Amino acid sequence: MLKINFMQFPSPVSIQWIAELIDAKLIGNSNGFATGINEIHKVEKGDLVFVDHPKYYDKCIHSAASFIIINKDYEVPDGKALLIVDHPFDAYCKIVNHFRPFEPCSKNISDSAIIGEGSFIYPNTFIGNHVRIGKNCIIHPNVTIMDHCIIGDQVIIQPGTVIGSSAFYYNSKKDRELWYKKMPDCGRVIIEDFVEIGAGCTIDRGVSHDTIIGKGTKMDNMIHIGHDTVTGKNCLIAAQVGIAGVVTLEDGVTLWGQVGVSKTLTIGENAVIYAQSGVGGDLEGGKTYFGSPVQDARIKTKELVWVKRIPELWEKVMGKSH
Amino acid sequence: MLKINFMQFPSPVSIQWIAELIDAKLIGNSNGFATGINEIHKVEKGDLVFVDHPKYYDKCIHSAASFIIINKDYEVPDGKALLIVDHPFDAYCKIVNHFRPFEPCSKNISDSAIIGEGSFIYPNTFIGNHVRIGKNCIIHPNVTIMDHCIIGDQVIIQPGTVIGSSAFYYNSKKDRELWYKKMPDCGRVIIEDFVEIGAGCTIDRGVSHDTIIGKGTKMDNMIHIGHDTVTGKNCLIAAQVGIAGVVTLEDGVTLWGQVGVSKTLTIGENAVIYAQSGVGGDLEGGKTYFGSPVQDARIKTKELVWVKRIPELWEKVMGKSH
Amino acid sequence: MLKINFMQFPSPVSIQWIAELIDAKLIGNSNGFATGINEIHKVEKGDLVFVDHPKYYDKCIHSAASFIIINKDYEVPDGKALLIVDHPFDAYCKIVNHFRPFEPCSKNISDSAIIGEGSFIYPNTFIGNHVRIGKNCIIHPNVTIMDHCIIGDQVIIQPGTVIGSSAFYYNSKKDRELWYKKMPDCGRVIIEDFVEIGAGCTIDRGVSHDTIIGKGTKMDNMIHIGHDTVTGKNCLIAAQVGIAGVVTLEDGVTLWGQVGVSKTLTIGENAVIYAQSGVGGDLEGGKTYFGSPVQDARIKTKELVWVKRIPELWEKVMGKSH
Repeated sequence: MLKINFMQFPSPVSIQWIAELIDAKLIGNSNGFATGINEIHKVEKGDLVFVDHPKYYDKCIHSAASFIIINKDYEVPDGKALLIVDHPFDAYCKIVNHFRPFEPCSKNISDSAIIGEGSFIYPNTFIGNHVRIGKNCIIHPNVTIMDHCIIGDQVIIQPGTVIGSSAFYYNSKKDRELWYKKMPDCGRVIIEDFVEIGAGCTIDRGVSHDTIIGKGTKMDNMIHIGHDTVTGKNCLIAAQVGIAGVVTLEDGVTLWGQVGVSKTLTIGENAVIYAQSGVGGDLEGGKTYFGSPVQDARIKTKELVWVKRIPELWEKVMGKSH
Repeated sequence: MLKINFMQFPSPVSIQWIAELIDAKLIGNSNGFATGINEIHKVEKGDLVFVDHPKYYDKCIHSAASFIIINKDYEVPDGKALLIVDHPFDAYCKIVNHFRPFEPCSKNISDSAIIGEGSFIYPNTFIGNHVRIGKNCIIHPNVTIMDHCIIGDQVIIQPGTVIGSSAFYYNSKKDRELWYKKMPDCGRVIIEDFVEIGAGCTIDRGVSHDTIIGKGTKMDNMIHIGHDTVTGKNCLIAAQVGIAGVVTLEDGVTLWGQVGVSKTLTIGENAVIYAQSGVGGDLEGGKTYFGSPVQDARIKTKELVWVKRIPELWEKVMGKSH
Repeated sequence: MLKINFMQFPSPVSIQWIAELIDAKLIGNSNGFATGINEIHKVEKGDLVFVDHPKYYDKCIHSAASFIIINKDYEVPDGKALLIVDHPFDAYCKIVNHFRPFEPCSKNISDSAIIGEGSFIYPNTFIGNHVRIGKNCIIHPNVTIMDHCIIGDQVIIQPGTVIGSSAFYYNSKKDRELWYKKMPDCGRVIIEDFVEIGAGCTIDRGVSHDTIIGKGTKMDNMIHIGHDTVTGKNCLIAAQVGIAGVVTLEDGVTLWGQVGVSKTLTIGENAVIYAQSGVGGDLEGGKTYFGSPVQDARIKTKELVWVKRIPELWEKVMGKSH
């Protein structure tokens, strides 16, 4: 699958017009035209990006992007423009929603969906607005694919699976009547070529990026994938695994059944996680892990043996009278 | 959301007629008219309730309820009536089913369903008989809402979710060919205002009460909620959590991913349960818990450290030769 | 439910024709006619079976089966024939697929599906080609039943459940671009009489056999059952349990919520597994188990107490200064 931009504008858009839309202070090259919006690791000349954390200011401003939405007055490199606002993510969502407004869809398969040659869509499946499905796919019954999601070639999606559900992502304040307020989610789900997804899975769309299932990855039934999570190529994910938001699985990762993976972490290439493990932090690739909380599988296995030895130790120290 | 009665009769019903319907011995005020059926914590004058456990006899008879289905001859307070039967729950179900008989529904959206202004129902969704959906809700594709369930205002239900599935509730006898016999479930599911429910969730209807999701509670994907379970306001429930039947989550409870909660227990206000924990008994509010079986999170964390120290202890006691 | 053959041919098929279809060397009774294909524990005279592991050669050849697809030249008993090929499973799938070719289905309920008297099918449910549903069943909305599956009498299938999804079964080679290649799955799902299946479950079809849910078994919501798994009669399976492929649950097994069961193992009659346990090997019947990895529940319970005693032990050995 070729590189997929986060958002390509239908035609280049005046950066002044965008600055007005989001009520931004525009500095630098104020006569430019933006060609699209992109994630920082994908940006090209002409792209618009946003950054709201000082840690990423430099990286973002010196990336290939031409236009940067930012919450700080900063030195502008030649030919670029900054759009200064208090809340870059809100501004970013406003632009995305302007170009991808909510459109109701009252048909099973939206007229704006594009379905490739040789793909078969079973009945009772919903395919939303602007969805693109590649060639030779099988989309089983009772599947839901929400607006703007992209499915590659040779993909199988089994019954009851949901692609592009809204992110579990809230602004939380406990001094108001309603503690949790839904935050916008501007991203999509992208399923690359040769991916197979089991029955009853749910894959949330991205908040600020796209959620991506990498080429050749195979998923069993009832797997949950959170927003903005990216899996590499050739991952193998067994049934009932849950992966929270903004996780990276590098290529060739194997997760056995009922594993849980916490948010914003990375599991390295070819790592194997045994069933029912709970992953709470980054894991180095090339190793095998087990337990909740997860450990190197050999260490965890030894630990299980050590626990069995407590009675012997007790008897030695305390005597028989326990 | 206003108080929702368990069942309001279309017009007041003669208690004599009810006594005949369920073959009960009627004592006390036999000329009364019942206005509805209610749960014990909601009853008002005119209501009918049932009680079958001696522990609750007094509470029930001295509640605001006017009519009590009971399995014991008991002193009747002035103006009230007792309906004495061997099996109060069966009698109760018989009345409920009389007023809410099974009605097949062969349309996607039943003609008797009521959908509030500003609510959008996606295609491929089933909405059963007598369902009420409030204002400004979004019900996504491939959702199922079974008969009599009530959805408040500003509710979002994501794709593939099931509201009002039948309870997992059986009479069990191992000396017959079929060990498990389905018990009736007379309750509904009530989703209060501003609740958001993720994709692929299942919420069972109540057996003797209603299953209730409290105002402002947010649920991630693939969460299972058992029959008669009640969550408070502003609870936050992460993906793949399973909650058995007759559980109470008080206000502001947070359950992280893949937590399991056993039946008939209470988790106190603002308690936080870490991912993959297993809750087997009541938990006090205001604390943080972890583990399977669950413990106070600080105690569990220390325990994990203690286990790591066994080898050192072993070496000290047994010497190096293990 | 009567014995259900894996595959009965429409009329007896010349074994020479079959040998040609799968390009096999035919030895022994080359003039016979096969009446069907069966699993080794169900075979009768006239049946065709396959065997590819030396461990099962003898059992297979001396079974009631008349025709054996095998990957070794072997002595043929009188009246039988061997069909020798390099890859018996592939040959077997070729025959199955010849008689059960993929047929697209563009209607909610296939014209070739047979639905028994008194069964009610809710809207938005998909019922595939050649599905058979018995009498007095209730199939709720948004259910998917894929081709060739068989549902007995008095079965309840709750909303959103998937019967007959494709197996999670791959040929794995890490020296090619796509590591995992889908293997054929030739089996079906058979749901016996009086089974009740909750909402949001997924039951994969068999690879070389049928996946079977035994008579009177009751399943709660969101349960995953892998390919070729067979449950006995009167099993009770709570919500969010996951069972991998080729597992045998004997009669009367109880699995509490969120239990995980690894592949190709057997859980003995009347065993009880507590919630969140992880089963990695065979378990003897009549006992109660707990833990991940699972142990006899009494041993696990004692172990939990032993862990609590480490600090006391430490203090005794090391003194207070930890």
